[in-house]
Amino acid sequence: MTSPFDPVAAPDADAAAAARARQDRLTKPAGALGRLEDLSVWVAACQGACPPHQFRRARVVVFAGDHGVAAAGVSAYPPDVTAQMVANFDAGGAAINVLAEVAGATVRVLDVAVDTEAPRSPAIGAHKVRRGSGNIAVEDALTDEELTAAVDAGRRVADEEVDAGADLLIAGDMGIGNTTPATTLIAALADCEPVAVVGRGTGVDDAGWARKTAAIRDALYRCRRTTDPLALLRICGGADLAAMAGFCAQAAVRRTPLLLDGLVVTAAALAAERMAPGARQWWQAGHRSTEPAHAVALDRLGLDPILDMRMRLGEGTGAALALPVLRAAVAALASMATFDEAGVATDMVS
Amino acid sequence: MTSPFDPVAAPDADAAAAARARQDRLTKPAGALGRLEDLSVWVAACQGACPPHQFRRARVVVFAGDHGVAAAGVSAYPPDVTAQMVANFDAGGAAINVLAEVAGATVRVLDVAVDTEAPRSPAIGAHKVRRGSGNIAVEDALTDEELTAAVDAGRRVADEEVDAGADLLIAGDMGIGNTTPATTLIAALADCEPVAVVGRGTGVDDAGWARKTAAIRDALYRCRRTTDPLALLRICGGADLAAMAGFCAQAAVRRTPLLLDGLVVTAAALAAERMAPGARQWWQAGHRSTEPAHAVALDRLGLDPILDMRMRLGEGTGAALALPVLRAAVAALASMATFDEAGVATDMVS
Repeated sequence: MTSPFDPVAAPDADAAAAARARQDRLTKPAGALGRLEDLSVWVAACQGACPPHQFRRARVVVFAGDHGVAAAGVSAYPPDVTAQMVANFDAGGAAINVLAEVAGATVRVLDVAVDTEAPRSPAIGAHKVRRGSGNIAVEDALTDEELTAAVDAGRRVADEEVDAGADLLIAGDMGIGNTTPATTLIAALADCEPVAVVGRGTGVDDAGWARKTAAIRDALYRCRRTTDPLALLRICGGADLAAMAGFCAQAAVRRTPLLLDGLVVTAAALAAERMAPGARQWWQAGHRSTEPAHAVALDRLGLDPILDMRMRLGEGTGAALALPVLRAAVAALASMATFDEAGVATDMVS
Repeated sequence: MTSPFDPVAAPDADAAAAARARQDRLTKPAGALGRLEDLSVWVAACQGACPPHQFRRARVVVFAGDHGVAAAGVSAYPPDVTAQMVANFDAGGAAINVLAEVAGATVRVLDVAVDTEAPRSPAIGAHKVRRGSGNIAVEDALTDEELTAAVDAGRRVADEEVDAGADLLIAGDMGIGNTTPATTLIAALADCEPVAVVGRGTGVDDAGWARKTAAIRDALYRCRRTTDPLALLRICGGADLAAMAGFCAQAAVRRTPLLLDGLVVTAAALAAERMAPGARQWWQAGHRSTEPAHAVALDRLGLDPILDMRMRLGEGTGAALALPVLRAAVAALASMATFDEAGVATDMVS
């Protein structure tokens, strides 16, 4: 495979070292802020600056797409809900709209492959690749041309957002049935048994879970001859997943920190790391969802989630909920007084 | 023991039921926001209203006090640091100042028992009980009169804050050596072996840890004849801990939700729950710290912490970091569209 991405640089080691040293001068015992200190060092390294600046334009991009496999009864909801939820995002009524506002982020929704005649608006449809992706249990999700278009759409959206000043990105997903291709991708990329990783998605019942597992087995059989991430996105992924993978990879190429959400985004990210090695250095995992495949993907990426709230919604909600924690990390490193400034004794006794 | 507190009422069950029902009408699969849904129901029950309103005046009160046991070398820092940190809180340079600002909360610091000639200001010293509490390894922390004054100070501060409009309270602690009485209190109230619960506090070395454990053993021996929470606060607690206990209990009496912080505040809360049974229904645990006794106290209170960030700073920082999560829970319940409002299908397929 030739990567369609420019090489990914590492975050700035000098800024990280300066941030670590500054943490030790702040008015608290060394290490007392725990994980918050590590997160602050990561942001400083991503920004190449110590102290880091608070995020000025945190941006959530929700990638919506339908999946032919939904017709196999793998979800608790009918496919129509994808388009209805795109309208809900557009109107500001969805969970991601509300959680993004609390976190000081704005939301953009894109119809990448929703199965409707026309996109809800020209802006929402600006990067549309096709109507719903193919039913991965029986056919390829995408043609070669559609795969290229989808990955490129994600890359261009990342470029657009970074060029518009975004300094923290979040990818979100919406699509009835999308945990089926996401789980397939993770099982294929991590070489797992499907029964170990298939979850309940939106809350499918036992019969639906069995149908979902069968569909994933069929899709895994169809892609058994490849471990190439692009080929897997084409055969058993979908346009939305390919676009998210392009978005996550390009965020890293553009040296912009990104918070991963749950199962679907992390599946795309696992493919993105294979396409753009080192990209994961620019990501943190916002949360751990209840989906078993999500834990597998996080493990393979070496990412320790910030939150564990038993969430399983997608849309970027788990990442948006973690954003205030990241903001707190930045604020502590940037704004706390040092021992010298505050006149606090640093001499350890004992 | 006669409780010095009025009876604690339960949060509003009708509002909780209405909140649970509303969660199931919001545009997401039922239960998909996980813990966030439970937190939203709790806030609705505390406010007696569905949907709940966003917190308008979230308030952190830091209770500062010295402890004679610090002279036994149980901390990595000299006792002077307590007063220096009070000045740092007053100047806005401490971690709690920064994290509270990110969370939309304000901070008040009180010198309850700092070991200085005079408090930093009349306002900070308004509820001062004494200079540093007694060395619990060899003497009682407080006299009977001081105990009453300290509990009453905490109660009055809660009343002042609620009367001034606070709708969410956080207690924070500051005091070199204060994890020693806090750990003693938890061991006494939960009937634990000291070695199982003694932690490193601010980061004491092995020799200091041994001194700390010895001091806790001595204090536990001194209080072995009582399980009364007020007697324990007097013998092996301190004025700051007694004030925090009064504050946490009175918050519940005043039907005001409160986020617990780490080891020291939770030790006081464990005593408060014994003094004012049912008070814990008005509390959530902001985080799990690295201190072993904190986990014991949370377990006895039946509280599941929101965050686990390996923090061990105190000051209210773990609670302040969790506040945006609680705000997100409130916002989701109050502001998300329902299925009807958004025209999203609710008919399950399978």
